[in-house]
Amino acid sequence: MDAADPIAAFRDRFLTDDATIYLDGNSMGRLPKAAVPRLREMAEHEWGTILVRGWIESGWMESPLRVGDRIGELIGASPGEVLVADTTSVGLFRLMTSVVRARPQRRVIVTERSNFPTDLYIAAGVAELLGCEVRAVERAELADAVDADTALLALTEVDFRTGERHDVGALTEAAHAAGALVLWDLSHSAGAVQIRLNHHRVDVAVGCGYKYLNGGPGSPAYLYVATALQDELRNPIQGWLGHDNPFLFDSDYRRAPGIRGWMSGSPPVLAISALAVGVDIQLEAGARAIGEKAAMLTEVFMRLAHARLDPLGFDVATPGSPERRGAQVSLRHADGLAIVRAVADRGVIGDFRPPDMCRFGLAPLYTRFVDLWDAVERIAEVVETNTHRLPKYREEVAIP
Amino acid sequence: MDAADPIAAFRDRFLTDDATIYLDGNSMGRLPKAAVPRLREMAEHEWGTILVRGWIESGWMESPLRVGDRIGELIGASPGEVLVADTTSVGLFRLMTSVVRARPQRRVIVTERSNFPTDLYIAAGVAELLGCEVRAVERAELADAVDADTALLALTEVDFRTGERHDVGALTEAAHAAGALVLWDLSHSAGAVQIRLNHHRVDVAVGCGYKYLNGGPGSPAYLYVATALQDELRNPIQGWLGHDNPFLFDSDYRRAPGIRGWMSGSPPVLAISALAVGVDIQLEAGARAIGEKAAMLTEVFMRLAHARLDPLGFDVATPGSPERRGAQVSLRHADGLAIVRAVADRGVIGDFRPPDMCRFGLAPLYTRFVDLWDAVERIAEVVETNTHRLPKYREEVAIP
Repeated sequence: MDAADPIAAFRDRFLTDDATIYLDGNSMGRLPKAAVPRLREMAEHEWGTILVRGWIESGWMESPLRVGDRIGELIGASPGEVLVADTTSVGLFRLMTSVVRARPQRRVIVTERSNFPTDLYIAAGVAELLGCEVRAVERAELADAVDADTALLALTEVDFRTGERHDVGALTEAAHAAGALVLWDLSHSAGAVQIRLNHHRVDVAVGCGYKYLNGGPGSPAYLYVATALQDELRNPIQGWLGHDNPFLFDSDYRRAPGIRGWMSGSPPVLAISALAVGVDIQLEAGARAIGEKAAMLTEVFMRLAHARLDPLGFDVATPGSPERRGAQVSLRHADGLAIVRAVADRGVIGDFRPPDMCRFGLAPLYTRFVDLWDAVERIAEVVETNTHRLPKYREEVAIP
Repeated sequence: MDAADPIAAFRDRFLTDDATIYLDGNSMGRLPKAAVPRLREMAEHEWGTILVRGWIESGWMESPLRVGDRIGELIGASPGEVLVADTTSVGLFRLMTSVVRARPQRRVIVTERSNFPTDLYIAAGVAELLGCEVRAVERAELADAVDADTALLALTEVDFRTGERHDVGALTEAAHAAGALVLWDLSHSAGAVQIRLNHHRVDVAVGCGYKYLNGGPGSPAYLYVATALQDELRNPIQGWLGHDNPFLFDSDYRRAPGIRGWMSGSPPVLAISALAVGVDIQLEAGARAIGEKAAMLTEVFMRLAHARLDPLGFDVATPGSPERRGAQVSLRHADGLAIVRAVADRGVIGDFRPPDMCRFGLAPLYTRFVDLWDAVERIAEVVETNTHRLPKYREEVAIP
């Protein structure tokens, strides 16, 4: 399968070692080798010698738009619809606030009870700030929960616990039918599965740079605002770089048109330069090929898990249908945390989410099919030998 | 004077070249040599091989607090009062919003008409969001403008155009006497002059990392919240890392106590690692020594400017009293923009702010006294030879 994999060669773009099977790219992606010389060039040449002129001469000022457009290409957006900025949390805050303010007759944000915590926390904060309400319902109740009082349906495309993937088209259509706007958090899907924001007429979206995009720890996030909404929705954090002419240093804010009006403070150009390396590799491999490999990797892993791990008390939590899952396979097990730790000591890095979820991210750009056999075998060995019952694996320590 | 300068040796910590006199450290600071290997270690070792475990093993998760505490030491704050996060714009938004919400009977943010644009724009955005008012007055009217209706007095310590420095103690006291809280933007003062936040009982503050702190282009900002206010003021962007136990992935937000509750999204650890290098150099040199050298550098530059440049149509805009200025000297000239450009071609990098302000930042860690003579001489030569009247210096191009 590795020999037949059309994007197998991309693994060589990343720093890897044969001792480690890294199945946590859904939490933080691997280092693209080219990021190291790029960071060096950025620091030593651009910052060190071009100095402040780099804002223009090295294109720093435009980098959030330039790298934003490349991410846009990856997620099915048009040029001028994506901006690299801040964190996912700040992006969620800005977009949720802007939508609720633009729909003053509608006072509800509908979301899913098992949405990623930051999405829920930010929504709760926005609701308290603006005096509106968050309606968090079960996955199956989402379409019905959106009604004439709904300003926004805010969801994460791929569930961080189970890897289950929403039907973006159907839910976006349901929201629009009720007159609501829709926000998709792409943090767990961009770079793992094919996304078509324009095709599905998605209104706004956010995503992080440090998972499948391989932008590095704490890499900046991005936000997407559909062209048609860019002038209607208003950025509540109106910083100077969102001004129509920031270098006038005018005392009155006059918002720049388009996505530029969503800029706030000075862009994190050092970090953007690393993110750009990861995004370029994605585009070279192609979102379709990446999505296809993700479907195959997860399929193989799940088959192996059913055969080898079901008898050991594991329960596959990820949907069987390839369109309904991301690039991650999650296995429930009562001793999940201890197992993930014991398996890590055997070179297989996954992670754990309470109460019982062992997560394995199968990042298509650097995960080989052979890794899946080895990983499942090592997981089985740990449980068969009761290694996970050793005291050192049972201590209470946080795993990010 | 250079031979007698107790912190002269710190210049060697920065990448410099003899052809360039860089007087724009008030816009973006120079590259500390140690930042290059630090970034390489961060990328290649921590990101590349420790991978996701770096959040704990490499201390990434704590880095906003750890580097925040070091910045706190520099600006006279106590441990646990400063957090590295986001941009100055986002920090201003979070703090202004939190103060206005905490003082619902008071509906005015008082600020200065010539405050830095992002401070004014963010205040205007907050006022519109919360239905309150921004009262922007002249510098001399500030103390009187604060009254029983004022929630917050929000100022920048050192004026970005003139380099004029506020009396932080007196204005903070005036605000407190009227029952208002006070916010200081330290972007143009931290790392240039000595700051004593706790001593002056400052309530909240923000600052950027890329000017005198030499954190690199687009380096993260920091925010300060006095211990006594940390539980009363509420972070409106309640992201998951501000949760009391983020790794529970609980669906309800339960705010972490203290400054940790001001964390929102995942911290920009790659950029923080570069910022930490710059901050450490500051601490090694010491805020007092840095402030004393800034006073001498500006004194010498102003004397030379009076002697050599006043006759050529320049007007020194920076106050004569050393306590009333930052580490910057600003010279008004009707042809300022063309002069700054022509002087840059002679290796003296300053910048320009409309309508007529030539700015020269004299960053104490790497500016020599000899540079001041050379710079003033080259400025004089440009004007005496009418070099600035060449067409190439008169085009309309933005200078950041």
